[in-house]
Amino acid sequence: MGVAANFVVTVEPAGADEPDALSALARLLASDMDACNQAIVARMTSPVALIPQLAAHIVAAGGKRLRPLLTLAAAQLCGYEGNRHVALATCVEFIHTATLLHDDVVDESQLRRGLASANAVFGNKASVLVGDFLFARAFELMVEDGSLKVLGILAHAAATIAEGEVLQLATQNDLTTPESRYLDVVTGKTAALFAAACQVGAVVADRPEAEEQALAEYGLKLGIAFQLVDDALDYAADQGKLGKTIGDDFREGKITLPVLAAYAVGSAEEREFWSRTIERCEQTDEDLDHALALMARHGAIAITLSRAQAYAAEARAALDMFPAGPMRSTLQAVTDYTVQRAF
Amino acid sequence: MGVAANFVVTVEPAGADEPDALSALARLLASDMDACNQAIVARMTSPVALIPQLAAHIVAAGGKRLRPLLTLAAAQLCGYEGNRHVALATCVEFIHTATLLHDDVVDESQLRRGLASANAVFGNKASVLVGDFLFARAFELMVEDGSLKVLGILAHAAATIAEGEVLQLATQNDLTTPESRYLDVVTGKTAALFAAACQVGAVVADRPEAEEQALAEYGLKLGIAFQLVDDALDYAADQGKLGKTIGDDFREGKITLPVLAAYAVGSAEEREFWSRTIERCEQTDEDLDHALALMARHGAIAITLSRAQAYAAEARAALDMFPAGPMRSTLQAVTDYTVQRAF
Repeated sequence: MGVAANFVVTVEPAGADEPDALSALARLLASDMDACNQAIVARMTSPVALIPQLAAHIVAAGGKRLRPLLTLAAAQLCGYEGNRHVALATCVEFIHTATLLHDDVVDESQLRRGLASANAVFGNKASVLVGDFLFARAFELMVEDGSLKVLGILAHAAATIAEGEVLQLATQNDLTTPESRYLDVVTGKTAALFAAACQVGAVVADRPEAEEQALAEYGLKLGIAFQLVDDALDYAADQGKLGKTIGDDFREGKITLPVLAAYAVGSAEEREFWSRTIERCEQTDEDLDHALALMARHGAIAITLSRAQAYAAEARAALDMFPAGPMRSTLQAVTDYTVQRAF
Repeated sequence: MGVAANFVVTVEPAGADEPDALSALARLLASDMDACNQAIVARMTSPVALIPQLAAHIVAAGGKRLRPLLTLAAAQLCGYEGNRHVALATCVEFIHTATLLHDDVVDESQLRRGLASANAVFGNKASVLVGDFLFARAFELMVEDGSLKVLGILAHAAATIAEGEVLQLATQNDLTTPESRYLDVVTGKTAALFAAACQVGAVVADRPEAEEQALAEYGLKLGIAFQLVDDALDYAADQGKLGKTIGDDFREGKITLPVLAAYAVGSAEEREFWSRTIERCEQTDEDLDHALALMARHGAIAITLSRAQAYAAEARAALDMFPAGPMRSTLQAVTDYTVQRAF
C-alpha cells in the first residue's frame, strides 16, 4: 500500500477476480461460517422477547464477523476436523457483541456501523442488560463445550477487555498519556479478544503449545494493527466508503495515536489548540478541520499507519511455522487487508 | 411477626442477647467470612487503578454479604471441610456486585430529563466497565477452582439474572402485567443468584443431587421472599431505620406487587390515578402520599408481605432433610429475618 504524505491514504483497488483477503477468508470458511451464523441465531433465544430482538439488531448490523472467522480459521489451520470450533466461534462473537453493546453505552455513540446504535433505539439500560445476557450465554456455551482451558482463555480475555476499556476511560482527555499506555489500551480493548479467538482454534485442535502461542501472537498483533488503523480511520476515512463519520474520537477527547503523534511535535500554539479541544473539550465547528490539517502537517496518520504495518508484519511472521497452503496465505493476506481497508 | 392493617408493619425487636438471624449466621461463619473478605479484596486487584478503587467503593458499601454467606453456610451445612467454598463465595459476591453496578446505569431518557450531571455520565461508563471486569474475574476464579458443574450453575444464573432484568424493563409502566410475570422478574433478577449461591455450597461438598436441589430450593424461595419484602419496603420502610428513601419504585413507574395489588381492586378513579402516575409517569408531589393511602386502604403491603411469608415458609421447609443443628436452625431463622427486616 502507499502511504501518502497527506492524511488521505490511497491503495490500489483489488481486481474483480481478486477479492480482498477477508472475503477470501470468509469464502474458504463458508460452510463453517454458515453453521456459526445458525448457532448465533439459535443461541441468542430467550423467553424474554426483547433479548433476541435487541441481539438480532446488533448481530444483523453484523459487519464482517472477523473474530469468529479467526477462531474457525485457526482451527482449520491446525487441521481440526470436529465441530467444537463452531460453538466456540459463537462464544467469541457473543463476547464481542456484548462489548459492543456496552461500548455504545460508554461512548454514547449514535452510530454503529452506519445504523442507529442499539442504545439509541432501545435505551442504555437494555443495551447493558442484553450485553450481560450474551456474555453469560457465551459462558454457558463454553461450559457445554467442556474445556476448562478454553474457559480460562476467554474469561481472561474478557477481564482484559474490561481493563483496557477502563484504562481508556482513565486516559481520556489526557495528552500526557505515553504511547505505551495507549498501546496498553489498544491491546486490552481490542487485541486481547483477537488473540484469544485465534488461540482457542489451536486448543480445540489439541496442538502443541508452540502452535497455540503462535496463533495467539498472530491474533494479538493483528488486533493491535486493526485498532491502530481504526484510530487512523477516525480522522482519515473515506466517509462514503466506510459509512462512518469522521471525528468521533476528536469530539470525545479520546487519546489515540494520531493525536499523540501530532501533539508530540506540535508548536506551543498547536499544543494549546490540542489542550483546548482534547483536554478541555472546548470545540468549535472549525476545530476538526484544523486538527486534520495539523495531522497532515506532521504526518500523524502516516505515523499511525506505519506503526500498524509493523504490527501486521509481526502477525504475518507468526504464522510462518505453519505449513504453507491456502489457509495460511489467506490469514497472512488478512494482515495487509487490515491496514488497507476502507481508505 | 404482626402484619398491621395499615401499611406500616411492626415487629418485636430482638433482645440484646438475641441477635437477628443474619448476624447469628455471620457469627457462625466468621472465620470463613474473614477469608472471603480477604479474597474479595485480593482478587479485585488490577494494574488499572480505577478498577480496585471503584470496586472497593461498592463492595465496602456492600451491606450484609448475604449471598456469599449463603454459599459458605450451604457448604458447612453439607459438612464440607475444604476451602473451595471461600473462592466460590467470592465469585458469587463479584457477580452480585457486577449486577448492582449495572443496575445503577442511568438511562438516556433520565439523562435527558436533566437528572444526571456530566459526573453521573462518567459514573455510567465506570459502572458498566467495572461491572464487566468483576463478572469476568468471577469466571476466572471459577476456572481456577476447576469445576465445570459450578461454572455451569453460575453461568446459567448470570444469564437468568440478565433475563429477569430485561423482563423488568419490558414490564415497566405496564399495569396489565400479570402477577406471574412479576414473579418471573423477581425470580430472575434476585432469586436465581440466591439459589445458585446455595447450590454451589452443596456441589463443593459433593453431596447427593437431592441435597443440592434442596439447597437450591431454599435459596430460590428465600430470594423471592427477599425481593417481595424489598418491594414492600420501597413503600413502607421505616426510613430512619433503613436509611433508604421511600418511593423510588413509584417514581420510576416500576411494576411491583404493592402496586399490582392496589390496582387490581381499585375503583375506576383509582385506576386512573395509577395509570397517570405509573403508566404515564405524570406525578406531582402529593402523588406518593396518595399511593400510600390507596395501598393502606386495600392492604397491598400486607398482601405482599403475606406472599413473602409463604415463600419464606417454603424455604424453611426445604431444609428439613438436613440434620438438625445450629447451621440448619440459623438458616431457617434467616427466612423469618428476611420478612421482618427493617420494618
